[in-house]
Amino acid sequence: MDTLSPFAPLTEPDLPTVDGVRFATEAAGIKYQGRTDVLLALFDPGTEVAGVFTTSRCPSAPVEWCRTHLSGGKARALVVNSGNANAFTGMKGHATVEATAEFAAEAAGCAPNEVFLASTGVIGEPMDPAPFGRVLKHMANRVSGDDLWDAARAIMTTDTFPKAASRQVSLDGQTITLAGIAKGAGMIAPDMATMLSFLFTDAPIAAPVLQALLSSSVKDTFNAITVDSDTSTSDTVMLFATGKAGDAGKISDPKDRRLISFKKALADLMRELAHAVVKDGEGLRKFIEIQVTGARSKTSARKIGKSIADSPLVKTAVAGEDANWGRVVMAVGKAGEPADRDTLAIWFGDIRVAVNGERDPDYSEERAAAYMTSPEITIRVDLGLGRGKDTVWTCDLTKEYVAINGDYRS
Amino acid sequence: MDTLSPFAPLTEPDLPTVDGVRFATEAAGIKYQGRTDVLLALFDPGTEVAGVFTTSRCPSAPVEWCRTHLSGGKARALVVNSGNANAFTGMKGHATVEATAEFAAEAAGCAPNEVFLASTGVIGEPMDPAPFGRVLKHMANRVSGDDLWDAARAIMTTDTFPKAASRQVSLDGQTITLAGIAKGAGMIAPDMATMLSFLFTDAPIAAPVLQALLSSSVKDTFNAITVDSDTSTSDTVMLFATGKAGDAGKISDPKDRRLISFKKALADLMRELAHAVVKDGEGLRKFIEIQVTGARSKTSARKIGKSIADSPLVKTAVAGEDANWGRVVMAVGKAGEPADRDTLAIWFGDIRVAVNGERDPDYSEERAAAYMTSPEITIRVDLGLGRGKDTVWTCDLTKEYVAINGDYRS
Repeated sequence: MDTLSPFAPLTEPDLPTVDGVRFATEAAGIKYQGRTDVLLALFDPGTEVAGVFTTSRCPSAPVEWCRTHLSGGKARALVVNSGNANAFTGMKGHATVEATAEFAAEAAGCAPNEVFLASTGVIGEPMDPAPFGRVLKHMANRVSGDDLWDAARAIMTTDTFPKAASRQVSLDGQTITLAGIAKGAGMIAPDMATMLSFLFTDAPIAAPVLQALLSSSVKDTFNAITVDSDTSTSDTVMLFATGKAGDAGKISDPKDRRLISFKKALADLMRELAHAVVKDGEGLRKFIEIQVTGARSKTSARKIGKSIADSPLVKTAVAGEDANWGRVVMAVGKAGEPADRDTLAIWFGDIRVAVNGERDPDYSEERAAAYMTSPEITIRVDLGLGRGKDTVWTCDLTKEYVAINGDYRS
Repeated sequence: MDTLSPFAPLTEPDLPTVDGVRFATEAAGIKYQGRTDVLLALFDPGTEVAGVFTTSRCPSAPVEWCRTHLSGGKARALVVNSGNANAFTGMKGHATVEATAEFAAEAAGCAPNEVFLASTGVIGEPMDPAPFGRVLKHMANRVSGDDLWDAARAIMTTDTFPKAASRQVSLDGQTITLAGIAKGAGMIAPDMATMLSFLFTDAPIAAPVLQALLSSSVKDTFNAITVDSDTSTSDTVMLFATGKAGDAGKISDPKDRRLISFKKALADLMRELAHAVVKDGEGLRKFIEIQVTGARSKTSARKIGKSIADSPLVKTAVAGEDANWGRVVMAVGKAGEPADRDTLAIWFGDIRVAVNGERDPDYSEERAAAYMTSPEITIRVDLGLGRGKDTVWTCDLTKEYVAINGDYRS
């Protein structure tokens, strides 16, 4: 069930520390045995925070807590646990969230509304806050800045590899560090996937600007990936900025030109982590990039891209190394967006397989079949209608996906 | 690959003939060998026709032909082939459709615009009209009214059983017969599924009324099923009414009270055929009915029902006989429709598993696990918000689905 993803990195490169952020992890036995399952991050005073959460109408208790307290814009602690999502747990869920925030506030020496929380794991199982009471105080006494890989490991569920990355960029003459961790689409019956990512920087950026940057960057990174079209109750992306690298005061204007390179580095880091999530999708063998061009608008291109990326027929075809462009036509057709069969062209890699509403006259089955053996597949669709374009990422759909999620108790 | 569906009927019951409709089938070798692949149906003069087609923006050439000629409201012949969908075949596809209609018109002694066409099978492969020229004349000479099961067999692709059914109902003192055939979601790489259904009646109903009845009935029958959320380029449902059972002239008012029992029988017949399509979904083991109640509207209930029915996580859980209501919560939450976690209740069969935003206090894992071993599973979700309700049907997602569609060439 837990076969290592073919995209698992061979090494864990050293990552820079982010001034003002320190971590500790602990095995609290929330559900898993013999592994860490709680992450505590402490932030120096003055840290600003931004967040983007699931669009689910049935969000988890920690998601509601974070949404409520994000308005303050200040963060001193982050507590993340794996093993229990504290979702669909009624009033008990809210009580657990409040108790956990109080334990963390006491350990960190801050107010509970400066504590942010995320949980991932089984849904509908009441979560006891007592383990947090037992471990958080001790964890706060041994935090350190340089165990980002350990932090990434503590938030895994059935992820087969930890996901962490960093960028460094110059802002106002100072070197700014950006680092982040993510967990992806691993599930254990009766669990479900949650996409969590936490990003940390020492850049001096005020919360409203931080929020604008995060909301904008999430669109073409985490919101442009799909493993199985299922949206978690707990999806969370948060960005914490300690301001330790800023001598000249905080940036509070979202149009400040000093943000240009920071914004690019942030989007780049988020894209790397989003790709890592896809590359650890359950049972995957192939990473698929879907490029849509020539659409009426970017929004239209996104919908068509997602329609292709979420199509079980396209995903099983890629798993079978079958350059089945007929299924791509089908997925374009069902998206409900402007499309004209007779101006449509489709490529697998650089091989054009269809053009002007029919099979490419130069189509070579052998060349396409050879391309489909690659671990990374690019499908490009040009609609021939306008200038709208977009890119989304997904993975193939294999028997192992069904095995991992189907359990086959019988 | 072609394991018989667990829902395949053991016998083919006798079906009544429909006065004014005669069939012939032929093995024309379009793609398959050693089986029939062309169906010809001939209709007596005066037959009225209605149709509903795929919403795909990339429809097949036969779908475009039928849409164009449906405005006439008259039908004398129907030609259906399996093995090639004549979809995404450019101008060649249109030429094939025109040539086929001419061959059929000559064989039937009618005008080409009274001929309707449907094709199912591989996409993007040019289809030669010559086989139709070879067989249609001969077929027209040996049509008969009583081989509906043969008709159903000729339009199969990887369906594992033929689908035909009938109803009889009284209209204006006369017994009216309704009969129909369907093919479902079977695929062969690099083919894709097409849902085709053809319905025949001797009722005396004018085309505009027939169209209103068909369009209305399709909503809660064929449009309420989903196997894998993928919409074909070729989906077609057509209803032919010969009027042979009408002594008192055609019904041309859609509000005519004589239509009430006919309408009920039509919807009933279409529901039976729609269920048969789901019960032959690729690789299925379980038939799933999803009932949504307490929604803000029927439209909202439909969206939530489809979100559950199309969720790979819900479908794999049912395959694994796992009463995983957490995934049902997830699917409700992601539908984007009004939902309140704290008024949500969920049942598997008559076992309430969740209520008021948390697990039912009386939930019994053993009872739920026992229920999940049934071949037919009902999932009910009550949103507790309003009076909107709807029902949709789907099947589970198994490793066999992936095997059938993935091919695993490597």
